[in-house]
Parts: sequence; C-alpha cells; structure tokens
Amino acid sequence: MPKPEVLPLRKVRALADDPSALDALHLDLQRRADATPEAWITRAPRASIHSSLTSAQARRERGQELPLYGVPFAVKDNIDVAGYPTTAACPAFSYTPARSSPVVDRLIEAGAIFMGKTNLDQFATGLSGVRSPYGVCRNPFDPRFISGGSSSGSAFVVATGLACFSLGTDTAGSGRVPAALNDIVGLKPTRGVLSIRGVVPACRSLDCVSIFASCVGDLAELFSLCASYDALDPFSRQAPTPVPSPTAPRIGVVGPSQLETFGDADAATLYQGAVERFRRLGASTVTIDLSAFRETARLLYHGPWLAERLEAAGELLRTRPEAVLPVFRSVVQEAHTRTALDAFRGQYRLAELRRATEAEWAQMDYLLLPTTPTTWTIAELEQDPIELNTRLGYYTNFVNLLDLTGIALPAGFRSDGLPLGVTLLGQAFSDRQLLEWGERFSAVP
Amino acid sequence: MPKPEVLPLRKVRALADDPSALDALHLDLQRRADATPEAWITRAPRASIHSSLTSAQARRERGQELPLYGVPFAVKDNIDVAGYPTTAACPAFSYTPARSSPVVDRLIEAGAIFMGKTNLDQFATGLSGVRSPYGVCRNPFDPRFISGGSSSGSAFVVATGLACFSLGTDTAGSGRVPAALNDIVGLKPTRGVLSIRGVVPACRSLDCVSIFASCVGDLAELFSLCASYDALDPFSRQAPTPVPSPTAPRIGVVGPSQLETFGDADAATLYQGAVERFRRLGASTVTIDLSAFRETARLLYHGPWLAERLEAAGELLRTRPEAVLPVFRSVVQEAHTRTALDAFRGQYRLAELRRATEAEWAQMDYLLLPTTPTTWTIAELEQDPIELNTRLGYYTNFVNLLDLTGIALPAGFRSDGLPLGVTLLGQAFSDRQLLEWGERFSAVP
Repeated sequence: MPKPEVLPLRKVRALADDPSALDALHLDLQRRADATPEAWITRAPRASIHSSLTSAQARRERGQELPLYGVPFAVKDNIDVAGYPTTAACPAFSYTPARSSPVVDRLIEAGAIFMGKTNLDQFATGLSGVRSPYGVCRNPFDPRFISGGSSSGSAFVVATGLACFSLGTDTAGSGRVPAALNDIVGLKPTRGVLSIRGVVPACRSLDCVSIFASCVGDLAELFSLCASYDALDPFSRQAPTPVPSPTAPRIGVVGPSQLETFGDADAATLYQGAVERFRRLGASTVTIDLSAFRETARLLYHGPWLAERLEAAGELLRTRPEAVLPVFRSVVQEAHTRTALDAFRGQYRLAELRRATEAEWAQMDYLLLPTTPTTWTIAELEQDPIELNTRLGYYTNFVNLLDLTGIALPAGFRSDGLPLGVTLLGQAFSDRQLLEWGERFSAVP
Repeated sequence: MPKPEVLPLRKVRALADDPSALDALHLDLQRRADATPEAWITRAPRASIHSSLTSAQARRERGQELPLYGVPFAVKDNIDVAGYPTTAACPAFSYTPARSSPVVDRLIEAGAIFMGKTNLDQFATGLSGVRSPYGVCRNPFDPRFISGGSSSGSAFVVATGLACFSLGTDTAGSGRVPAALNDIVGLKPTRGVLSIRGVVPACRSLDCVSIFASCVGDLAELFSLCASYDALDPFSRQAPTPVPSPTAPRIGVVGPSQLETFGDADAATLYQGAVERFRRLGASTVTIDLSAFRETARLLYHGPWLAERLEAAGELLRTRPEAVLPVFRSVVQEAHTRTALDAFRGQYRLAELRRATEAEWAQMDYLLLPTTPTTWTIAELEQDPIELNTRLGYYTNFVNLLDLTGIALPAGFRSDGLPLGVTLLGQAFSDRQLLEWGERFSAVP
C-alpha cells in the first residue's frame, strides 16, 4: 500500500491567491473522501463547502486577516457544528445543534473550511476505532489494522490528506492513540485551555478538545488559534504566562523493566530510537518509576470516573438500551453500581497518587512514553474488545486524571510498515513547551 | 452573668520568666476547667501538664526559641493528639492515635501546653454544639443559648479564658459559627494550608483545621506557626507568595433585600455597624448578589458532598447504628442514595456556580457577611435540630466549596447581651490579608 500523503497548511497557502486552484483542491478532496465513507459520519455538502470558500474569499478581499484561509478541516462527531447532527456515533442520540462549539467558531472565523464530521468510537469510549455503527475506520497503512480511537476518522482524514487538520477529543487517549497509529501529530492540550462547550461529554471533568495535524508547526499555529478562555465553559481555565522551555530538558523515560510492548520488539526499538533522538537534541534522560502513573490509569475505568460516562448516554441506556453498542453497554454498566462515596474515595486516592507522581516530576521536565504499547488488527480487537482496548490505553489513561498535557509524535515504522508513536508529556500549561520540543524532535532524523 | 475573661498570649508571656507563676496559672486553669465538664471530652492529667511545662522550661533554658512557651491550648476532639483518645464525640468510634496531627506537633514544638480535647457536634456534623453525647456546651454569655458548633468546646474554652487558643475544624462553618457566638476570633484558613493529617474526616475534600483565639494579633501569630506544607497530606497545598493587601479594599456586602437575619433586628444593626467600621478604615463597599453563593451553600448537605460524611462514620452506621446520635443518622442517611454520577453532577454544578461567583469577585477584594443570621436557644435547637442548624450555616456553608478563606470577627452584642459576629471572606491564599484587615477592624470602635 502506498504511503498516504498529508496536506500541510503550506500546501493550501500556496494556492491562496488562486481561487480556482483552491476550488479545484476542495473538489478533489471531496471526490477522494467518497472512497472512505467509514471515516465520516456526516459530510458537508458540496454547495456548503463552495459557499464557505466564497465567503472566506470575500472576507479576505475586504482585508480581513484569515490565518486559515481556505484550509480544509474535519470535526469529530461529538463536537457541535451548527446545523449538522452531532451523533457521538450513536444514531439514537443524535441532535442538531443551533450553535457550533467555540473552538469550531474560532477556526471558521480564521477562514478554515468545514469538510464534515468524522467517525469515532461510540460516545468517545474506546481507543480502537472499531466501536461505531458507522463502520470501522481502517488504518491507512494497512487496512487489516485499527486506526486507533476514539477519534478514528479525525486522525484518518489528516493522515490521508483529506483535511489539513482536524479536531478530536481526548479523555483516555483519544487524541493521541490514533495520531500514533496514523503517523501524524496530535496535541492533547491542558484541560480547560480549549473550550469544551458544545462537546458531548465522555468524562466531563476530564474531557479535552484535541487537534490533529500533519506536522508540529501546523499544530502550534492551530493551538494558538484554538486556545482561548471561555467564560461560559465552567471547566475553562486561564492559562498562566508561559514559562520558557529549558534548553537541556530532563526527560523522564521508562526503563526496560517497565517498558510494556506486549511482545512487540519493534515497538521497543522505536521507543528507544525516540529517546536517543531527544538525547541528540541535548536532553538528558532519567529513568522514572511508572507505578503511580499506572495505578492512576486504572482509576479511569475501574474507579468512579466511569460514572461520568452515564452523563450523556445514561438516559438512552435506561430507555432504549438496544440503541447503544453492546460493547459500550458492557463497559459502562458497572458505573450504575458506583456510589457517591466511591466517587469521593476515588478522588482521595487520585490525590494520593498525584502526590506520588510529584516525586517523579521533581526529577524531570517532561515524560516521554510510547503512545501505545503496540497495535492490533481489527479482527483481534473484535475478538477481545475490552482487554485489547485497555492495553491501547496503557500509556495514556492517566494523563487527564493527573492534569498533564501531551503531544503525540510519530516514532517511525515497524518492519511491517505500520507506524507507532511516542508522547511527550508535561505538567499543566506546558503546551507551548511541548510544541517547541515536538518540533525540534520532528526536525532531526 | 459577668462577661467572661479571655487569656491573650501576652498574659502568659508576662509570666515567662517566673516558672512558679506559670505553674500557678496552669493550676488555676485546671481548677476552673472542672466547672464546665461539658466543654471537654478528655482533659490532660495534671501530671502531664506539669511535665509539659517542665520540659518546655528545660528546652527554653537550653536556649531554644519557644514562641508559645507555656501557652495553654485545647484541641477539638476530632484531631489526633498522641496518646489521647480521638472520639469525634462518638464513644463507639474512639481510637487512640500513636501520633499527633502535624499541626498539634508544631504547636507543642513551639512550647504550647496541651490542656485537653474539646467537645464537638458528633463527627463535626452540626453548627450548634448540641449534638454530643458528652453534654451540651453552653453559651458563656447566657447558658440558655447555644455555643455554636461543631467546634463548641474549642470556642468556649478560649472565650472563658481556659486556654489562650484552640484548634477546631471547619467544613461547613464549624470554625466560624462558634467564634461568633462566643465573641472570639476564628480563622478558617485556605484549604490545604494547614495539614489535615490526623483529622477525622467530615468531608475530606473540604475539611480545614481552624484556629480560635481571643484577638486577631494572636491568631496571626498562630497561623504563621501552624501553616506548613505537608507532603504526606495529599490535600496539602503550597501557598503562593503572599500578595500585599490593597490599601483601600473593595468590600462586597449584602444589601437589605438579601440580608437574612430571621427577624433579628439587632443582628442587622450589628452587621451594618461592621460595614460602617470597614468604611471608616478606608474600604469602599459594593452590594453584591449572594444568589450563587447561597445556591452553592445548599450543595453541601443537599448535594453529593453529604456522602463524604460516610467516610468516617459509614462502618459504624452499618454495623452499630444505635452507637451514633439519631440526629446524625437522620442527616447522613440520605447519603446512601447518592450515586457516583450524582457526585460528578454536583461537581459540574459547583463548577458553574464558581464561575457565577467569579463575576461577583471581579467587583470586590473581600466579602463581608454576618457569621450567623442570628442565634437560638439550646431548647429551640433541640426542638428543631435540622432546620435551625441549616439556618446557622446560611452564610458559611459555601465557603469551602468555593475555595475561600475567612476570618470570623466579633461584631458586638445584641441588646440581650449575646454576641454576634461577621466574617471577612477572601479568595484562596488571602489568609494573611484577612488577618491584617481583621486586626485593623478590631482596633477601631
């Protein structure tokens, strides 16, 4: 299978002064998008894309600065875009919002062109991309393999150049796992830095809007455009003044005894290669103890946070349980047994585990981990949907609970041609530092 | 009834160079303490007090700096003091800790002399001081009236000069309400600034250790001695560098339409008097909308936080329900019905209400409120234990949920000779500012 070609911002910008070339690009993208219907849930009609382009062009001609003029983007179908159904990959849940999420508004205001809503694991609960009644989004490098999820379609359309960038969401790793498996970059920002208004909650206290792009430079630009305090989002946070990155960061790494790849030797090699690349960039590395991070990860599905997943889907589960996928039902059914005291006790335990991870953070500026331990085929996921999904989140599930931020970066390819990734994690509000180091990492071989 | 006499630090310090006078003071305090057994749950034995004094004296003679040399203090009986039972006013719950709470350790290290454990509303659940199997701690100005709770004994012993200061705890208002009704000062610090290790949890996510003293100057000294980051307390927080107080603060006040005193005209007059006093100190006042604060207050007992009260008492309620007071049972029984989703939804609502209160905080530096709307007799509380208790927390229940800090200050006396108070509230970590303004307030007539 030929390596898919991405569409960085600069390729669209090269056409900015040629409206007919921009039109032709968009027509071509729409035609190519027809080939993978499983990546989408709702496509923007051709007429709508055309009128978006015309309107952006008119604004540009009036002298308005449009940093994303004509740039095609896609939106995960658990984020509201005015006038388009939001399904969360559950047709029975679908509603059509009158307003777009503020992040979508900011992008359209900047001149970006909305292409469609992308497929996802139902209610953003899953990390594989196989849990959707709208079809299974396949891996662009080998269709037998998973794309990763839950933001499967959003990662796929960026990896295959159907959009310059896309929005995803990330609670357990949905903005990082599919970036890794699609060989693109993904930013899971600090919680509260991008508004989560107009997003179907997965775990509302943890949810983040995430961004997928084909390169870190684009990601950094997009982050600056999307990040904005939203007084109407009670989870929005004012970011403090950014602190400059250290010139020789101390990067925490996982040692051989704690490096879990479920037998994938290539994955271990790719991780070591990424560690070496950071060393070549002047970073020192320190082996840290992942135990408290791993115990935190288990809280996400085995602790009370599972109950948050009833916020969006609870009513449907009660009244029309057949309307949701059996795998989603089986994952969340246990949530009904959790009491309010369980919820608080989970939070007490989390407070203890945060304290334990602080001892590790005292030794490092960033933490570099594999994004996923390895990857699996769609058939394997369908056979063992819970356990393999849990394994996919091995290095991601603790991140939002511990109030960290992370950038998912390509780490290269296994011998079978499938990409894997690493994630550089930082403490809350270090997003810009991660983007800076992510860019340096991407620039060296 | 004669106005009780307090024991400020300076009175003890005046005796520092006269060991026999200090001994005599302590003997006198112990004799007087016998008269109000209902203020105490466990008294330190005379021999123990004597040996504490001797040991402090020896340390002082070795040249150790003991800022609290010989100073008698009392500890609410939900805070551990090594070797003394911690009952939380529930004999069946009692255990004897091997270690003291870190705050107690710091005080003893500073030379303070532990006098005993004080009575409280069972499991610190209540604001009246009438909910204890160890007797009802009466108001020192009129024994028909309540002392306020839950730190009833701790406030009483300071008000009556049986101790220079005392430790309390404050979840719903337990460190402020009894300060007001005993005409003393109380600091409910920012959550996490004083360690809560070794404290029986009421609502562990909200609990604070509080301090009662006879004057603000003493309180400020004691706060400096007690405040310390505790790496072993997962709720401990590193305080940021203190910001200087504004010279002409904007003080939020409640207007006539929202001033609830349940018909107590004197209470309204005393509140207005306190507002005037702050104006005379150069503060400007702004009438704010209390609605979002009030709605937050209702979350404490009508939202999921009630479930936290099962953390300490749940096992006993299940196995020996007769071992806890019926009023405590009736308050917390509803907690069993709360689900984990309820807990998260309560937190979502709290996030919205915090946002709503931010709009009010934009207009003010501090918020000045009555500490209690009014006061009631012990007989009235016994007749209507839930509703009147709720009324006592009218101006206090929202404070920890909104991450505020507060200093309770005497506001003067009603025509019947009973004291009432006001509380100056500030945002997290403004403790030192509140102490500074509290001292200025106390210095003007």
